[in-house]
Amino acid sequence: MNKETIGVEKLQELLTRGPFNRWLDFSVLSVNEEGIEVEVTWREEWVVNPEQRYTHGGILAAIIDTAADYAIAATLGRPVPTISIRVDYHKAAKPGNLKARAHVVRLGRQYSTAESYVYDKDGSLVASGRGTYYTAPPRS
Amino acid sequence: MNKETIGVEKLQELLTRGPFNRWLDFSVLSVNEEGIEVEVTWREEWVVNPEQRYTHGGILAAIIDTAADYAIAATLGRPVPTISIRVDYHKAAKPGNLKARAHVVRLGRQYSTAESYVYDKDGSLVASGRGTYYTAPPRS
Amino acid sequence: MNKETIGVEKLQELLTRGPFNRWLDFSVLSVNEEGIEVEVTWREEWVVNPEQRYTHGGILAAIIDTAADYAIAATLGRPVPTISIRVDYHKAAKPGNLKARAHVVRLGRQYSTAESYVYDKDGSLVASGRGTYYTAPPRS
Amino acid sequence: MNKETIGVEKLQELLTRGPFNRWLDFSVLSVNEEGIEVEVTWREEWVVNPEQRYTHGGILAAIIDTAADYAIAATLGRPVPTISIRVDYHKAAKPGNLKARAHVVRLGRQYSTAESYVYDKDGSLVASGRGTYYTAPPRS
Repeated sequence: MNKETIGVEKLQELLTRGPFNRWLDFSVLSVNEEGIEVEVTWREEWVVNPEQRYTHGGILAAIIDTAADYAIAATLGRPVPTISIRVDYHKAAKPGNLKARAHVVRLGRQYSTAESYVYDKDGSLVASGRGTYYTAPPRS
Repeated sequence: MNKETIGVEKLQELLTRGPFNRWLDFSVLSVNEEGIEVEVTWREEWVVNPEQRYTHGGILAAIIDTAADYAIAATLGRPVPTISIRVDYHKAAKPGNLKARAHVVRLGRQYSTAESYVYDKDGSLVASGRGTYYTAPPRS
Repeated sequence: MNKETIGVEKLQELLTRGPFNRWLDFSVLSVNEEGIEVEVTWREEWVVNPEQRYTHGGILAAIIDTAADYAIAATLGRPVPTISIRVDYHKAAKPGNLKARAHVVRLGRQYSTAESYVYDKDGSLVASGRGTYYTAPPRS
Repeated sequence: MNKETIGVEKLQELLTRGPFNRWLDFSVLSVNEEGIEVEVTWREEWVVNPEQRYTHGGILAAIIDTAADYAIAATLGRPVPTISIRVDYHKAAKPGNLKARAHVVRLGRQYSTAESYVYDKDGSLVASGRGTYYTAPPRS
């Protein structure tokens, strides 16, 4: 499949438009036919457990949803509404920046699926999941 | 099923321990055998789409995960690790406080399932979902 | 919400059209505004574990998908394509007929969500889950 | 990661023990560090829509669950209880044998995640998904 994708700069620009994406401080690291890679900057507010300083599962879910959505945006040129997500939590995410890799599983006419994997600063997989997105052409 | 639950005050105290739960500003509204009800205070940082000011799906996922987790905590007396979540997005959540209702679907020995529903300030269902939690007794 | 639903007989007729639904031997027990109730007749072929004779998780997934789909069909008058399902397994389903209750969580214009609960012959919850369905009007 | 896996013959033997797996007529095609590949033989009973002869989503869910479970079994030497599954349906599966590829996403001490992809006889992806499995050592 020969998919054209938009570049890192354009994807970064789309991603940065959203205040919550800015709060998560997403940087687009790469965009190509295999998918995208993004990084988020750790914040003390993410902690759920004050003793062990784990990252809240909702933050990981937000990263998984956003990375999967923008893997589709890299092809369609626009982010798309999320229909549903599934997130699996693999291990506690300790303080530190997180990276996510995401790719399109299947691009459909009405809805599409993409998958995301989130890694901690040591490269361990902390969470993974997938989302289904509404990709019908926008009504003009 | 006659389940004892911890009260609103104790659940609020547990919930407030986590920095991200404080950032979402969770208030426990009620706790009883039917489940729990919580409210979060809207923040401008939640927005994903700057024109239409929709709330980011990751925020809704965080609310669904937290409400389901604390529906279990109301019975077990402690929050529990999330194994996986599913979130369905029903309609765009416009600015305004959100309420969530959550209840235990099944309390198991090793893992348990709970369900959450999130409503906007007009009482419309904006998202719903479920989580599975690791509820084996903590190793001492 | 005042939803008109089609009756038990009409829903049974729609359900019975599918060979796999006939193989599972679905009977519609009730249809009303609260949702639907269906029953399936146990078959020896469902077993996954020959010593303990548990029912295969795929059979439970099929029941959850079908019951959720027909909870929507009870309102729309037709079964609809499944976009995705989530199934949680609560306990081993021993031999015996299973009942499922399903209801619509949210009926949307493009896609809709419904939830199902499956009970064994003693009334214990063995699995539960939800599906999202493509409910845009069929193109003529 | 250097994972030892059991061979095709041993995995086939484990898989064939279950009556429903025999009914689906699973053949193990390959087992290696990358995951497993299995095939199922099409049956007329799988049809959900009698005009277009699509395969029932429950059959695809059963294949996804089984393939993911046995991707874990290839490493652990035994099939494991399913905690939950997610299945995304990408396109209608027309009559014909189906192949599934599955791999372990993360092997944990208490629970583990694996992913499956199902292809029709022309090699098109018809469904994909993931399951979380209870992988704590069996109590003796």
